[in-house]
Amino acid sequence: MGLVAWSVAAAAGAVVLSHTIVDPLVVIGYFSVVAGFVAWRLIPLLSDIFFEARLAGNDVNKAHRPLIPESLGIVVATIYLMALFLFIPFPFKQWFAQDDRTEGIRTFPFQKLGEFLAALLCLQSMVFLGFADDVFNIRWRYKLLMPTVASVPLLMGYYLSDGVTYMIVPLPFRPIFGQILNIGILYYVYIVMLTIFCTNSINILAGINGVEAGQSLIIAISIAINDLLYVNGPDKPAADVHLFSLYFMLPFIAVTTALLWHNWYPARVFVGDTYCYFAGMTFAVVGIVGHFSKTVLLMFIPQIVNFIYSTPQLFHIIPCPRHRLPRLNPETGLLEPSRAPLQELSPLGHTLARLLNGVGLTRFTYNADQTPAEMTNLTLLNLILIYTGPLHEQTLAGVVMALQVIGSGVAFTIRYKLVHFFY
Amino acid sequence: MGLVAWSVAAAAGAVVLSHTIVDPLVVIGYFSVVAGFVAWRLIPLLSDIFFEARLAGNDVNKAHRPLIPESLGIVVATIYLMALFLFIPFPFKQWFAQDDRTEGIRTFPFQKLGEFLAALLCLQSMVFLGFADDVFNIRWRYKLLMPTVASVPLLMGYYLSDGVTYMIVPLPFRPIFGQILNIGILYYVYIVMLTIFCTNSINILAGINGVEAGQSLIIAISIAINDLLYVNGPDKPAADVHLFSLYFMLPFIAVTTALLWHNWYPARVFVGDTYCYFAGMTFAVVGIVGHFSKTVLLMFIPQIVNFIYSTPQLFHIIPCPRHRLPRLNPETGLLEPSRAPLQELSPLGHTLARLLNGVGLTRFTYNADQTPAEMTNLTLLNLILIYTGPLHEQTLAGVVMALQVIGSGVAFTIRYKLVHFFY
Repeated sequence: MGLVAWSVAAAAGAVVLSHTIVDPLVVIGYFSVVAGFVAWRLIPLLSDIFFEARLAGNDVNKAHRPLIPESLGIVVATIYLMALFLFIPFPFKQWFAQDDRTEGIRTFPFQKLGEFLAALLCLQSMVFLGFADDVFNIRWRYKLLMPTVASVPLLMGYYLSDGVTYMIVPLPFRPIFGQILNIGILYYVYIVMLTIFCTNSINILAGINGVEAGQSLIIAISIAINDLLYVNGPDKPAADVHLFSLYFMLPFIAVTTALLWHNWYPARVFVGDTYCYFAGMTFAVVGIVGHFSKTVLLMFIPQIVNFIYSTPQLFHIIPCPRHRLPRLNPETGLLEPSRAPLQELSPLGHTLARLLNGVGLTRFTYNADQTPAEMTNLTLLNLILIYTGPLHEQTLAGVVMALQVIGSGVAFTIRYKLVHFFY
Repeated sequence: MGLVAWSVAAAAGAVVLSHTIVDPLVVIGYFSVVAGFVAWRLIPLLSDIFFEARLAGNDVNKAHRPLIPESLGIVVATIYLMALFLFIPFPFKQWFAQDDRTEGIRTFPFQKLGEFLAALLCLQSMVFLGFADDVFNIRWRYKLLMPTVASVPLLMGYYLSDGVTYMIVPLPFRPIFGQILNIGILYYVYIVMLTIFCTNSINILAGINGVEAGQSLIIAISIAINDLLYVNGPDKPAADVHLFSLYFMLPFIAVTTALLWHNWYPARVFVGDTYCYFAGMTFAVVGIVGHFSKTVLLMFIPQIVNFIYSTPQLFHIIPCPRHRLPRLNPETGLLEPSRAPLQELSPLGHTLARLLNGVGLTRFTYNADQTPAEMTNLTLLNLILIYTGPLHEQTLAGVVMALQVIGSGVAFTIRYKLVHFFY
């Protein structure tokens, strides 16, 4: 009953907004609050149907390994998409309030609308494929292909709209390449790589309560802050693209907050691959459409570190156990680094493992004869635990979020202070 | 290995097409053949993962009720969407072959691109919601809402592009309303009702092997034939919208043929709600975007008959058992009409049931005391069986397809011969 009353109130608000010319930012702000609230209410109500559909998993870092519903990312992603669907007309309202023709030519910005629709199509494709992954457990090689498929509408839209494939060459390389370089088709390759990286890098810095939604929330807030630096600025094209970015970030922040509420320690729901893909693709899309993909990448410093740090295991130079999550010590109730066995190492793997241990990036345990037995798995979560000692699960999630905040600080510094050394 | 060779050949073909200016119809024809072939090969290969995801159901009209994979519609819908994603640039190639500006104004048809993207977004939303329905078994009242949500991008796109909400008034009503009537917001209500009808009406003329894909195939071919009457005609706007419709129909015909191959008696796969929603929405979308929704509705005569005929049970005036499918008689191997009990009838239900029995639209069975015991369920499938007598399952599916062909004949007659009596 409460939900019905709220729905009526929300609909009434939407009707009022649709009959007045208000700043689209106000509208998307309103939609975001409503979407966040609906997500916050719906997630617990829908848990049952996830159990019925057998979308549930054990929370392995709790003493009793409770079974909790999985893939709730699908709920927030659906609410998010609905909010943006309903928002479509608002940025364009000024064109139907006045006569739409200047000297017989329609001034309606169909190109902008096309970008908006292509971005939504791309996001929805990724959510859809992410959900298919949660239902079908798609194999890794196909998983890597999914963002490529999902980004096709965006690539097409990009190609069709302006298709700028120039890059500004950093200073050290200008003697070779000149100031501006047209990288042509490589630009599209870059876009695809970016979507693959953004979607999967959140998916591998994952596995403890709150960490996927937590890091995504910080990234989204950072991108939104960066957008706010431009939206009232003198550079009209820059203001436009950052406004576009805000339209996507504000509802994302709202629904992610709702999801984090239920996914925070002790989690009542899991977010699923769906959420990780959805989040990563949202960031990639705004970066690509807004032509600030390098800034978006700067917000991914912890994910980049985690990915590079993980590569020896991801490429099987060092043995990679199926799960590399920190392990619960049931006696202390704290998480400790998980470990990989050091038998059957190739000479290269042997050298690399010793090197990492020597510089403090992993920690060996030794057999009775002083030969190395195991090393900590190469993930950022385990690395944190090496230096902090065992942590409570929610503390570890908090540390990751704090690192993400520091990363954003570094990103802003590079973007606005150090950039002059390069461009 | 064979599949790899085929993929390489298909990709080579696509590259050749992308480097030459060819008629987009040739391109979509090529994409359709490839999509149909890929679907035909993939459906059996993917069956296992549907079992693993517990997306499977019993085929109740076989003696041993075998368990077969369900919701394979998701596979064909995904292949279909990928084909259309990749097709996006082709209708627009002529604009990037030449200089895109006429007196400084870009001539690129962003409005057309927007319509295309909105249509794809709408279709993908419906596929996504249909799949969610297959996974979660969503309740009826929410099911009815799903096409409404999915059609939002289309409504928005429609509103933003030209937003024509005029209708031409049929002759008998012109003294009252005049020749043209602006029905305003009612037009949008009509669009939503159309999507709800198209998606659900295929879903209720369902339940025997091959019938969902079979009827959809005939409808799609009928729409495509109607399109072909215009694409080379003198009316340029009509030619454009029917070309647009063909772009959506040709790959649909291809993937549906592939699905029907595996779903035909004895079915190796079920199509799922996903497919019914996907099919219905494809027809609704081309009708709406192409402004020939009344013609599309004319192609749905068997579905309209089935829906109206079902209403006494759908609205519970007459008892509605959970399953109304024809029943297998294991002794003959033939399907016979299923029946609903006639106890606990309201006076209205009693009168209606007697009336239907009197005019031959249902058939009673009687108790020993000559009071009515049961009546055949009110579905087109049962009605056919009343008149033909028991039929083999594949014969019944064939009869429905034949009725659909007759319906299309009637539709063309009304559309091109009788229309002059009304307009």
